[in-house]
Amino acid sequence: MLKLYYAPNTCALASHIALEEAGAAYETVRMNFKTEDQKKPDYLKINPKARVPSLVTDRGIITETPAILLYIAQTYPAAKLAPLDDPFALAQVQAFNSYLCSTVHVAHAHRVRGYRWTDDAAAIETMKQKVPQTVGECFLLIEREMFAGPWVMGKDYSVCDAYLFTLSQWLGADGVDIGKTPKIAEHFRRVGERPAVRKAVADETQLQSAA
Amino acid sequence: MLKLYYAPNTCALASHIALEEAGAAYETVRMNFKTEDQKKPDYLKINPKARVPSLVTDRGIITETPAILLYIAQTYPAAKLAPLDDPFALAQVQAFNSYLCSTVHVAHAHRVRGYRWTDDAAAIETMKQKVPQTVGECFLLIEREMFAGPWVMGKDYSVCDAYLFTLSQWLGADGVDIGKTPKIAEHFRRVGERPAVRKAVADETQLQSAA
Repeated sequence: MLKLYYAPNTCALASHIALEEAGAAYETVRMNFKTEDQKKPDYLKINPKARVPSLVTDRGIITETPAILLYIAQTYPAAKLAPLDDPFALAQVQAFNSYLCSTVHVAHAHRVRGYRWTDDAAAIETMKQKVPQTVGECFLLIEREMFAGPWVMGKDYSVCDAYLFTLSQWLGADGVDIGKTPKIAEHFRRVGERPAVRKAVADETQLQSAA
Repeated sequence: MLKLYYAPNTCALASHIALEEAGAAYETVRMNFKTEDQKKPDYLKINPKARVPSLVTDRGIITETPAILLYIAQTYPAAKLAPLDDPFALAQVQAFNSYLCSTVHVAHAHRVRGYRWTDDAAAIETMKQKVPQTVGECFLLIEREMFAGPWVMGKDYSVCDAYLFTLSQWLGADGVDIGKTPKIAEHFRRVGERPAVRKAVADETQLQSAA
């Protein structure tokens, strides 16, 4: 059975949602970042990058959200989570997800994980101050240039929607008004109503409360 | 015909190499970052992110290195640039490329593009100082945990090799001694001897000299 290692309020939610959308048989393992579970020896054997998500399969372990999302889409084709038979359309999916991981998530990470890129406390503070601007600009670009509608890629729901939903959740804490991107705001509400998304979010919230 | 927009000394080289390896019919357009070609209106119509690479196809435009590399591998299957028929193995390719774009390239970018994440000149200087450490740690992790050998993914050359080669080129300027990662150092030398790689590198160098 597939096993997803995640931590609440992280990008692992996108993979969690995709597993639900796929109807996959899977279990989850909740990591607690406050106690730095991700840096413990047992977890470093699973993911030496000390990050989530990690998806354990019968073949081995997959890390990195865009890779996990593609894997789920490919191994559960009936769920139609990506345009698997069209290399150009699939490239658009991968391009969107790559933008989210390499630019949007990175912009966001400068609010709480600035220590990754500087050892200077004052510099970390200046990074935090710029996050509303940098993340806000990313979302304006998505709204204007990438969001086809009604779903990210157009008429078909895809893994991109799960991933965008996950990062949209962080906008409030990042100091970005989601109302400035009305298509994304409506998308966020609409994705949040999907049964698979409700289930994944509830699982993570429930476990978080119980911990 | 495919058209690749690139700038010298950028990650676009990975896509350039992959096009050569694939035996694709393509042309290139050299962008000059010093004169900020990437921010000019004509280019923003091609790539509103103001980045390279951009690959123009007869269906439309693809951006983001991991997406372009997958597209080239899928549309030139005879070149065997990725394990297309094995979702788990393909996920490993995508995971590696995702790590390069979202963590390794980002660590590197703090040396010369710190202004993306702070407006403070002193903070930018502190970011530069940490780059040898952050990039160096990434390459140690690749050497120890990800590099199967003789190629990144094992016995078969793949787009991952073109991408790793591209980022390995930056190590000297980033203040990282490639000798600390002997497998990657040997890989860098060996990839650099491939005819497709020599051709792509020579094209970019020649055009750069002529500009």
